[in-house]
Amino acid sequence: MSRRDSKRNPSDSLGVTRFVPVRHRRSNCLDLTPPAPRQSCWSLGSSKVTSPHVSATYTAALYFSPRVLWSGEDGGPSAASRRTSRERGARLSGSSRPEQAASFLHTGHGAESQSVARVTQVINAGKSALNEDQACCEVVVARRRPMSYCPPSTPSKTPTAKRRNSLPNGEALGLRVEHMMGEESEGLVFHYWALFDGHAGSGAAVVASRLLQHHIACQLQAVIEILRNLHTPPPTVLGEEPDSSPYLQGNAPGPHRSLTRAASLRGAAGAPSSPSSTPPPPRFYMEKRVQHESLVIGAMENAFKEMDAQIEREKQVYSISGGCTALTVVYLLGKLYVGNAGDSRAIIIRDNEIVSMSTEFTPESERQRLQFLGYMQPQLLGNEFTHLEFPRRVQRKEVGKRMLYRDFTMNGWAYKTVEDEDLKFPLIYGEGKKARVLATIGVTRGLGDHDLKVHDSNIYIKPFLSCIPEVKVYNLTQHEHGTDDVLVMGTDGLWDVLTNEEVAEAVSTFLSNCDPDDLHRYTMAAQDLVMRARGVLRDRGWRITNERLGSGDDISVFIIPLMYGNRQP
Amino acid sequence: MSRRDSKRNPSDSLGVTRFVPVRHRRSNCLDLTPPAPRQSCWSLGSSKVTSPHVSATYTAALYFSPRVLWSGEDGGPSAASRRTSRERGARLSGSSRPEQAASFLHTGHGAESQSVARVTQVINAGKSALNEDQACCEVVVARRRPMSYCPPSTPSKTPTAKRRNSLPNGEALGLRVEHMMGEESEGLVFHYWALFDGHAGSGAAVVASRLLQHHIACQLQAVIEILRNLHTPPPTVLGEEPDSSPYLQGNAPGPHRSLTRAASLRGAAGAPSSPSSTPPPPRFYMEKRVQHESLVIGAMENAFKEMDAQIEREKQVYSISGGCTALTVVYLLGKLYVGNAGDSRAIIIRDNEIVSMSTEFTPESERQRLQFLGYMQPQLLGNEFTHLEFPRRVQRKEVGKRMLYRDFTMNGWAYKTVEDEDLKFPLIYGEGKKARVLATIGVTRGLGDHDLKVHDSNIYIKPFLSCIPEVKVYNLTQHEHGTDDVLVMGTDGLWDVLTNEEVAEAVSTFLSNCDPDDLHRYTMAAQDLVMRARGVLRDRGWRITNERLGSGDDISVFIIPLMYGNRQP
Repeated sequence: MSRRDSKRNPSDSLGVTRFVPVRHRRSNCLDLTPPAPRQSCWSLGSSKVTSPHVSATYTAALYFSPRVLWSGEDGGPSAASRRTSRERGARLSGSSRPEQAASFLHTGHGAESQSVARVTQVINAGKSALNEDQACCEVVVARRRPMSYCPPSTPSKTPTAKRRNSLPNGEALGLRVEHMMGEESEGLVFHYWALFDGHAGSGAAVVASRLLQHHIACQLQAVIEILRNLHTPPPTVLGEEPDSSPYLQGNAPGPHRSLTRAASLRGAAGAPSSPSSTPPPPRFYMEKRVQHESLVIGAMENAFKEMDAQIEREKQVYSISGGCTALTVVYLLGKLYVGNAGDSRAIIIRDNEIVSMSTEFTPESERQRLQFLGYMQPQLLGNEFTHLEFPRRVQRKEVGKRMLYRDFTMNGWAYKTVEDEDLKFPLIYGEGKKARVLATIGVTRGLGDHDLKVHDSNIYIKPFLSCIPEVKVYNLTQHEHGTDDVLVMGTDGLWDVLTNEEVAEAVSTFLSNCDPDDLHRYTMAAQDLVMRARGVLRDRGWRITNERLGSGDDISVFIIPLMYGNRQP
Repeated sequence: MSRRDSKRNPSDSLGVTRFVPVRHRRSNCLDLTPPAPRQSCWSLGSSKVTSPHVSATYTAALYFSPRVLWSGEDGGPSAASRRTSRERGARLSGSSRPEQAASFLHTGHGAESQSVARVTQVINAGKSALNEDQACCEVVVARRRPMSYCPPSTPSKTPTAKRRNSLPNGEALGLRVEHMMGEESEGLVFHYWALFDGHAGSGAAVVASRLLQHHIACQLQAVIEILRNLHTPPPTVLGEEPDSSPYLQGNAPGPHRSLTRAASLRGAAGAPSSPSSTPPPPRFYMEKRVQHESLVIGAMENAFKEMDAQIEREKQVYSISGGCTALTVVYLLGKLYVGNAGDSRAIIIRDNEIVSMSTEFTPESERQRLQFLGYMQPQLLGNEFTHLEFPRRVQRKEVGKRMLYRDFTMNGWAYKTVEDEDLKFPLIYGEGKKARVLATIGVTRGLGDHDLKVHDSNIYIKPFLSCIPEVKVYNLTQHEHGTDDVLVMGTDGLWDVLTNEEVAEAVSTFLSNCDPDDLHRYTMAAQDLVMRARGVLRDRGWRITNERLGSGDDISVFIIPLMYGNRQP
């Protein structure tokens, strides 16, 4: 988007960030020797348990001008597709058509991408061929379009895209946003950052890093006009004047407390027994007021769902391996929306305080959801697993004794008499980072994994996984941010070895020691974080401070300065 | 329990409170004229929507000596049963057999109960015949017993208790704790406070107020020895030396981070495919460490489940009407365990800070759990309801238009095209206190309600309700408490009209204006809270501060001073 366009955008008055364009700078490319293989499962992903290599990735701090259309890094499967995308990116670099941003995919490694004007550096150190961490950042323009433009919300069972050798880039999927001359002001601009941590292959992570932002844009398209008109609440029904609804007439402060809990509302607001007839005139008029913010949250939730459905459809055409977590940040109309499905994490460091912006979804944190599903649909457990949890595997000789257990209803523990049934493997097993669902996977939300099965069985993992993110909102305009106030996004490779406090301490110390005018200091702080998490090679292992073990996992970090969010253009 | 017994109890050294015995004091009996009937649904419970009366109850502050065995209030259904229980209480008042505390039920209204030595005042103002709020406080002794003593954890299908006219008091249910001479020191003493807010009748609330503490005691019986030995972690299997387990040998800090998420643990910890054979020797030894605290939480969770199962069994024999919420506080070994199933609330006011000790469970807070169940088991919706949520009832003329909705996966909102299916009544409908499940009930956790059906249909509500409490723990010994630091428990009648801050302000102000040596000040503060929530009659309505409407619901409050929890005996 050109600066002129930016000024004309009405959303600017609502607090759209004016990001500082990044200057060219050749990054330090880390040459991290892989640590000595200690055991077979160092590397990420079940399909690579025999690989002795680990890879480290860091995605540097990204802050960019509205003219920058797209920036990202991925370990795309073929050099040809990379080149093609890069050429597209290069063609786009001087473009003043912001709506095209969403229609092209630009991929490239470190030095390559620097040939594209104004695209920030992305460094992919370590072995990119094995790298299952993927990242994306982009300025996306969602444009008002007819509904039919977006993919249907119910996944189509018969994909029409023809078979291709490369991974999908959205062109065949109706995701390409066309350029419509003279309607720039109708678009809605959002900034987007995302981290995807793949497992059992990088396919899902690569596809999601290329396409998820388009799904978010698609979902937002239906509500562009509503979001741009913050003074009017979202209408319950589109195309209807809000005041024409009879339900709003009685919405004044009424006899609120006088409705007691077991008083049936059936007579009050229409009997449910006659769905095919017009409900009788309600006695209590009630209509829920929905906030604009909720529409963005809903758009992100449904975008994740659509992305997952697309991967399921496309994997019949393309080869899309594995699954991935997804941590996304959308900056729109003065607010940060952090959507997380998986075990990555985002925190805000502000004025020496830490604000948690995500929750990790793991077998432990989602135990009760998973156990409940296994209890409700025992066929999903294939007669091999029990939904009950035990502190360890039950042994045959313990049948008849009393052992600690947890059911889906319990947060505490109790003793039960062990029965034959309890000898089955527990649905949730292990502790902390070792915890697994169905003895297979250690993360319970994300995209892909449609083919993932329990080893040597016909039991699918996918029914237990959720593709739905938890979305947390941070209102940038409600706080004054200093130059050291940042949002840190990281994959679990970072957070497994550093606590929130250690990360905040490291970032704050690093930034405060930099020249405040150095625009690269966020990039360098991100590099510093990654190297802290990796540690140094000593005593036949990678060590971080206090002689703790460094991370053997992929590590990806975004550090996003927040101070620009306070400034009205 | 006598003071001598108390001193001998080994748990004393772990921080058992020495409660100050309350002195006799005639309470002010509130004479609250019922507010003028404004509409048909002022009173609590769907069975009483036509009643013009509301009732106010307050249960005064309760702090009692270990010799006080039981104190409570209920609006028991028959004067005969009240008298009987009162006589039992009277007989017990001089008893030095603490274990009998759990075996008798003492009920009585205000002045009546004052004839029982050391039982604190309980005032039941308003119309007790309509009172669906019930309360209980008691010192309970759980004693070590054979497993067979407690009811089975799977509810029996064939209750053997013979038909009786009065409500069950546990004697026929194996719940009566027998006196075993010379084994006082083997018991585990806990203090217990509970509020039950009934709906559609007081039956479930009355039964739960009489029996729930015994279920907790029963569940704790299995772990008494373990809880009393805080220096040894709970064994995974009972009757086995902890160190004899091979799983613990490798539990030292190991290659924790090196296990990546998709690496199968099947080979690592026993293949799940052969449940009937002894698992192969594990390669990674892992065994979850369970805290003592978790055993108490598990005991409370299972006690609620057993209580609910008992109500279901007993209602075939006794007449047990309606359902009830349950908010319980157990003080055991220096910690407060607050278990909540429903929309009552407990907060701790400490040094001018508020610590939330419970979460309310309502159609809004549990929307996604309920929608998920309706989505998974649509037959529970009886073809009359849809699991989707809309801001208001959908009208036939809106079919084909786009309307706001939420699915079980969503916290945000989005638009969908209205179909015929969406004309069904929403599973969750209404907002705030008006929100209902299946157009019937406004609270989603509690006990009872097994017979509750959607009006004029065969759709049961119970599958959507949960009897499981959320248990929060507060370690009294980790804080120094002043004389004004208290735990406040209240039914929704209180919290509907007063915020946490208003309650904290009112209680703190009241207590600070009292003589610190006045042992009745907590009682008076509870009375003050109830009257604040009720308000005064003005302009044909009950008004509280700022001309807001007072509560028309039952109101029950406990105020429990915390300072005694810090003091070692």
